[in-house]
Amino acid sequence: MTKARVEAFSDGVIAIAITLLVLDIHVPEPGSAASLAHELAKQWPSYAAYVVSFLTIGIIWINHTAMLRRLNTVDHSIMFLNLLLLMSIAVLPFTTALMAAYLKASGGENLAAAIYGGSLLVMGLAFFTMNRHLLQARVGLLRDHLTPELRRAVLRRNAAGLVPYALATLCAIVSPYLTLAICGAVAVFYALPATTGDTPPEAPLD
Amino acid sequence: MTKARVEAFSDGVIAIAITLLVLDIHVPEPGSAASLAHELAKQWPSYAAYVVSFLTIGIIWINHTAMLRRLNTVDHSIMFLNLLLLMSIAVLPFTTALMAAYLKASGGENLAAAIYGGSLLVMGLAFFTMNRHLLQARVGLLRDHLTPELRRAVLRRNAAGLVPYALATLCAIVSPYLTLAICGAVAVFYALPATTGDTPPEAPLD
Amino acid sequence: MTKARVEAFSDGVIAIAITLLVLDIHVPEPGSAASLAHELAKQWPSYAAYVVSFLTIGIIWINHTAMLRRLNTVDHSIMFLNLLLLMSIAVLPFTTALMAAYLKASGGENLAAAIYGGSLLVMGLAFFTMNRHLLQARVGLLRDHLTPELRRAVLRRNAAGLVPYALATLCAIVSPYLTLAICGAVAVFYALPATTGDTPPEAPLD
Amino acid sequence: MTKARVEAFSDGVIAIAITLLVLDIHVPEPGSAASLAHELAKQWPSYAAYVVSFLTIGIIWINHTAMLRRLNTVDHSIMFLNLLLLMSIAVLPFTTALMAAYLKASGGENLAAAIYGGSLLVMGLAFFTMNRHLLQARVGLLRDHLTPELRRAVLRRNAAGLVPYALATLCAIVSPYLTLAICGAVAVFYALPATTGDTPPEAPLD
Repeated sequence: MTKARVEAFSDGVIAIAITLLVLDIHVPEPGSAASLAHELAKQWPSYAAYVVSFLTIGIIWINHTAMLRRLNTVDHSIMFLNLLLLMSIAVLPFTTALMAAYLKASGGENLAAAIYGGSLLVMGLAFFTMNRHLLQARVGLLRDHLTPELRRAVLRRNAAGLVPYALATLCAIVSPYLTLAICGAVAVFYALPATTGDTPPEAPLD
Repeated sequence: MTKARVEAFSDGVIAIAITLLVLDIHVPEPGSAASLAHELAKQWPSYAAYVVSFLTIGIIWINHTAMLRRLNTVDHSIMFLNLLLLMSIAVLPFTTALMAAYLKASGGENLAAAIYGGSLLVMGLAFFTMNRHLLQARVGLLRDHLTPELRRAVLRRNAAGLVPYALATLCAIVSPYLTLAICGAVAVFYALPATTGDTPPEAPLD
Repeated sequence: MTKARVEAFSDGVIAIAITLLVLDIHVPEPGSAASLAHELAKQWPSYAAYVVSFLTIGIIWINHTAMLRRLNTVDHSIMFLNLLLLMSIAVLPFTTALMAAYLKASGGENLAAAIYGGSLLVMGLAFFTMNRHLLQARVGLLRDHLTPELRRAVLRRNAAGLVPYALATLCAIVSPYLTLAICGAVAVFYALPATTGDTPPEAPLD
Repeated sequence: MTKARVEAFSDGVIAIAITLLVLDIHVPEPGSAASLAHELAKQWPSYAAYVVSFLTIGIIWINHTAMLRRLNTVDHSIMFLNLLLLMSIAVLPFTTALMAAYLKASGGENLAAAIYGGSLLVMGLAFFTMNRHLLQARVGLLRDHLTPELRRAVLRRNAAGLVPYALATLCAIVSPYLTLAICGAVAVFYALPATTGDTPPEAPLD
């Protein structure tokens, strides 16, 4: 079934993007003057950016399973919107590395943070666009009947999730630390049991 | 079922190739004389090549799902032709990086563009070869009865898709920008809803 | 089914992490003064760390299949704990590279070993936390009825598996070689047929 | 089902190993004195090693599907032997890069070729070991009844496939080119329709 391949391909791209993040954490050169502890401590922005991006991609993956769970089947338009969503996810190892490299820099740090926040915002927008397409233009492909009210509620919650990323992008003017902190807070918030969207957190899925 | 493993392995290779593309977008070294904005702007060929290759690989994946959807099962010849197709896709992160590195160079830029266009042409040829094998030599493995006319029409459309890549490769003599622009236009064209091949774009798949 | 996607995504992340390990084994520069044999022999810590980490990740994957096999379905809490487990696995290419780079160093070698042992301990703790959640807080999602005694026995065996990693981390103060040796011994121990957990080693699974 | 996860995990590891091969084909630095054509031509060993390893890994994957197709289910011993097989495959991007880097070198080229041939031999041995285990010690898990004669015939053919890799490894003393040529010839030989093992090449699989 084509829907199964869309899921498998998406799982593949998202799994690779989330795992490639580790390639940006570098092993300090042995034999440098500074101690290893000092060298490792110095690159804390890499760890912070790693954790925030890992959790964020993980949560978008969880949301992706929920979005596709509602579908019986897919069509070409859905496959293409999904491809755009995957592109917005696949680019995150770059924006994460940029954020990590410039967080403590004096010069470029605001731009790097704006690009990082902006890349998460674009990912959120790609998700919202696909979700809205499914819930408004492809109602006939949904597995269960969802009332218009319920569908609007799902989209409203989805749209509300874009606000903190927009805020994080704007706050890059003030401080790159603030951008990273907001993105991290969003990840923690969505990880909390009570905030997972349209199924109660303890409900078995499927 | 073996067909399911062919799909899973193909999804894996294509997902990895499409996600590895991001490794060629480099983070500028902090503390350089030029501003980060300037450094990031300078590497726009990397972004352009990234988007074109991502969409192109994504579309070949969509077409791959359509090609395998027609099959009930696979045999060894199909698995081997599929392996050659995957090799032509897996090499694209290299040709994309080559294109990006030489687009603005004075020296080598025409060759790099010809190799890029040529690599997409080879991928298209590998796809066409496999598709023709399925539709002409392995009719017994098809899921549904397709009339010879319909099968020829599918292959004609498939062959027509090779023309722009041949053109893009030839145009590398004139300008590498032209090569990239043609390849990008092909990706956008196939993304448009009305041009997806043998199913109407709004038809549910499967 | 969502459980199938959790398995597919986990398979993806673990497969990528285990395969990325090879990127840390470097090809010596041709034309150096020393012979290739000498250069290759010199980097034996990379091979040792590679084998230990490959087997360890492989065994955690085998255990992951056993853990999810007990489930009928998943909920959000399980998906999130699984995400944390995957993060603890995805970080291992970094800690493995760190271990390999510093094993023979004079300076930083104890810290590197402690981080390596510690990263395996954290992975074990993430696994135990998820397993305990399934067996104590999500009994209703289990496929088969397991008596409380049996569930406690599974968790006790699981917890016992954490002890050698705690020991390996502590032993980093004494010698990084000892840390690696303990971790390697654990991998070999779990590979032995008689020690695989709650199914007899020759029992067909499923 | 656990067998499905073994297939998915194996597909993942093999797909990643086969796709990572491309990371060893380097883009020449723009602006060097030599022309791009010259620079690209110079690194032909990378292309040759890439093609040979890609086809070899692809064929081992095809053989892996055939091996697991015979099974109804798996047990722990099979999962562990499969893990060793995957380790022998995952290491090939390193031995391929070594072969490519030293093929034309004067110094180290014989050792590099011996390691390359040896790594393919080890992979073949790991495959044979697992196959023999399935066909001799786990007959009860096979899907179809296979007569002892048929099972011995499969293993004999499998063992015969090890001979050229042993030869390629030995020939490294004579010439690294010979090693690569033999390995390439094996790949082409197995790709030919008439030589695929225990099913006629045109038989639908499953």
